[in-house]
Amino acid sequence: MNLPIVRYITGWVLKFEAAFLLIPVIVGLCYKEYHILVIYLIVAALCLLAGFVLQIKKPKDMASQIYIREGFASVALAWVALSVFGCLPFVMTGEIPNFVDALFETVSGLTTTGASILDDVEALSKTSMFWRCFTHWIGGMGIFVFIMAVLPMVGLQSMNLMRAESPGPSVGKFVPKLQNSAILSYVIYIAITIICFISYLISGMTVYESITLCFGTVGTGGFGIYNDSMASFTPLQINLMTIFMILSGVNYSVYFCMITGHLKEILSFEEVRYYFIIIFGSIALIAWNIHSMYGSIGETIRHAAFQVGSVITTSGFSTVDFDQWPQLSKNILIILMIVGACAGSTGGGMKVSRLLILFKSIAKEIRSIIHPHNVRKLYLDKHPLSDEMLRSTNAYAAIYFVLIFVSILLIAHDNLDFTTNFTAVLATLNNIGPGLGMVGPSHSFSVYSMFSKCVFIFDMLAGRLELFPILILFLPSCWRKY
Amino acid sequence: MNLPIVRYITGWVLKFEAAFLLIPVIVGLCYKEYHILVIYLIVAALCLLAGFVLQIKKPKDMASQIYIREGFASVALAWVALSVFGCLPFVMTGEIPNFVDALFETVSGLTTTGASILDDVEALSKTSMFWRCFTHWIGGMGIFVFIMAVLPMVGLQSMNLMRAESPGPSVGKFVPKLQNSAILSYVIYIAITIICFISYLISGMTVYESITLCFGTVGTGGFGIYNDSMASFTPLQINLMTIFMILSGVNYSVYFCMITGHLKEILSFEEVRYYFIIIFGSIALIAWNIHSMYGSIGETIRHAAFQVGSVITTSGFSTVDFDQWPQLSKNILIILMIVGACAGSTGGGMKVSRLLILFKSIAKEIRSIIHPHNVRKLYLDKHPLSDEMLRSTNAYAAIYFVLIFVSILLIAHDNLDFTTNFTAVLATLNNIGPGLGMVGPSHSFSVYSMFSKCVFIFDMLAGRLELFPILILFLPSCWRKY
Repeated sequence: MNLPIVRYITGWVLKFEAAFLLIPVIVGLCYKEYHILVIYLIVAALCLLAGFVLQIKKPKDMASQIYIREGFASVALAWVALSVFGCLPFVMTGEIPNFVDALFETVSGLTTTGASILDDVEALSKTSMFWRCFTHWIGGMGIFVFIMAVLPMVGLQSMNLMRAESPGPSVGKFVPKLQNSAILSYVIYIAITIICFISYLISGMTVYESITLCFGTVGTGGFGIYNDSMASFTPLQINLMTIFMILSGVNYSVYFCMITGHLKEILSFEEVRYYFIIIFGSIALIAWNIHSMYGSIGETIRHAAFQVGSVITTSGFSTVDFDQWPQLSKNILIILMIVGACAGSTGGGMKVSRLLILFKSIAKEIRSIIHPHNVRKLYLDKHPLSDEMLRSTNAYAAIYFVLIFVSILLIAHDNLDFTTNFTAVLATLNNIGPGLGMVGPSHSFSVYSMFSKCVFIFDMLAGRLELFPILILFLPSCWRKY
Repeated sequence: MNLPIVRYITGWVLKFEAAFLLIPVIVGLCYKEYHILVIYLIVAALCLLAGFVLQIKKPKDMASQIYIREGFASVALAWVALSVFGCLPFVMTGEIPNFVDALFETVSGLTTTGASILDDVEALSKTSMFWRCFTHWIGGMGIFVFIMAVLPMVGLQSMNLMRAESPGPSVGKFVPKLQNSAILSYVIYIAITIICFISYLISGMTVYESITLCFGTVGTGGFGIYNDSMASFTPLQINLMTIFMILSGVNYSVYFCMITGHLKEILSFEEVRYYFIIIFGSIALIAWNIHSMYGSIGETIRHAAFQVGSVITTSGFSTVDFDQWPQLSKNILIILMIVGACAGSTGGGMKVSRLLILFKSIAKEIRSIIHPHNVRKLYLDKHPLSDEMLRSTNAYAAIYFVLIFVSILLIAHDNLDFTTNFTAVLATLNNIGPGLGMVGPSHSFSVYSMFSKCVFIFDMLAGRLELFPILILFLPSCWRKY
């Protein structure tokens, strides 16, 4: 691996983080939390300093030397650096004094998981609460996509950076030029954020509520600002959030087609079609299953839709304690945790398109038993699926299940029940947030030991970066010099 | 599909079942259970009659027309027929009056699962208890392997039958001629059974105990003959069973090499090596985890080894209620449930070789990120792995996990807890027997509704026949005429 390049790229990321850290400082000024904001200033300065140190020596051959390996390793290590510096304010303000806890919370924010170790969220200062929610927004679309949109990387093979950070089996490039594609992604992202913010404001939320919650909604994060998550909000506000969560889980190519007027193309997105089929199917089943628990049909559908939207987009907000729902509904939610949102969105999970590819290859394999000499090619959105894509999707699914079981083994020593452990791993690896049982919506991850929290930190990062970037760091041959 | 061939083959299977049903009749004679044995005689007559009816018209082109599709469909349908007729004695004697319950018990026996709906096993007559255990032995090596060993199928493409019934990613043929291979399988199978029976006898079990339990041991079934499974047996007897269970989960190619003196080749079986590594590793971990629960090291290791052997070989006997063990041990057992035994053994599960193939393809995929232009071929036991084998193994794993989640959804309406449902599905799909929670070693599957039991019956058959034969029955194109 070309380490100087990885170092240099990490330097960039830290400089950008320094800039991001100034935004909670402004919030601190508004709320006069001077003793808090000064710490954010210090951490911003530290980030900037670290960024400069890492970038002192510019590596030669920068333009041509970012191969997949450098791309993946840079993104993985930069996300680790981002998280380590991002958690310092929590530690230094004493709001989350334990480093592992603070790291858990920050990784949970950046990876848009929304799992928390805080039992009393409301005890946070306004500034730290803002930073906690803002990490969702930074991580949602991705820091590298942001950097690429802002910095002109002339001739740089930055495709391999984007590939590591973009969710889904393939990179969703809207236009041939990567920088324009990154800019477009952020334009759409910011536009949805602003529309969401204004809608929340109109629905009666305060400015602070609107802004913090819209970060979690559009980034599909899930950090609430109250201890009961979303339970205290009005039906209108809950429905609005449902809509914006579900829209944020849609492949952003759809919005690009909308902007450019290619409306016909939208209908050809198989993934998006199945995404909505799964959502409506799940809402109907759950609503039928829980209808006796709530007063009216409206209330039933509101809670069902909110929870389905929250889980399939891997946001993880909650309006009710769905751990109290009957098994069928809980099982549907567990399966939605695995399904996840669309590729090319801000959501996590396996992604609908990956499951489509898996199902298509299953069907092909069974068909090949009946017609051994009649091998058909597989298509997604009318494009043929390459063997490479099939292989890597299969490997992805296999690694995914291996990681789930290894994680369950590693956290077993805390001796919590199987449902808690299983859903805790699903909730972190898929970047959802709450699970069931002891990590259900009315509990937090504080029940776990430090070691288990480290396992979850790994799972959240692995899930957000889609396994491979994090995993190659563990291969010795990755670190070998050319 | 060529239906006349499928009909004709099913006829054969039923004739053989008629012969098998005469063995419990002998047991009935010994124990003077005349009112019971007469029913077994009637069912044997019914089987024979059905067999004759199905075989009245011999299909033309028999020799050349068994393609994969016919092979798979014949095996699947014959196993269904085998189970339906096999459960009739339980229904007609009134010992398991409900047809679905009786079918569950019989499928559980034939597929060597060992899951039971009986809360009081000891209430069965000696004859029915024997038949129940004997189904393990019939299903262990497979009825088609038996038929092939006994009937000379001149020129028949019976490879496709063997392929559907033999566990593992490829058919373990010892010698080029299929019939000889089938004979050898049964010779080894019978030899192990006899050695096991004699060992049990010497260890102090009664003749009846020895014979019924050796069926479950060598067939890796798991039906006990006492309500507390194996808890009342002596340490020596328990250790003997541990050894015979583990030996029954070994790929039978090892025994073939032993007989033919190819001892060096045994060392080249990667699967067997990993099988023993997994076993010893799991015993060590569990023994360490549960040592405070038992008096001596000997007792701790005895229970750990027995349970590991019982679960990885998918037998499912128990000496203690392992549902009371700490989470780590329970999670190891859950993972062993999925791992399963070696290919080419009588055990179920995913099979160690399949997991090896999956892990190798994962490693290849990760390596290809680091060295994109350096694609190495994959090997198992020094033989190159074909793309077809990799694809079909991947599809197998994907279908496997899809089936698990679909089954969990289907049985959810009984509203049992997630751990119970999850392990119940694992225990049936992998042909193990007991799970955890409400289907733990000290409980039975009687807690589930009739509908859920039907789901489990499907899972047991799908697991035993390794998914594809059962699944193609659901494709309309499978039934189309040529």
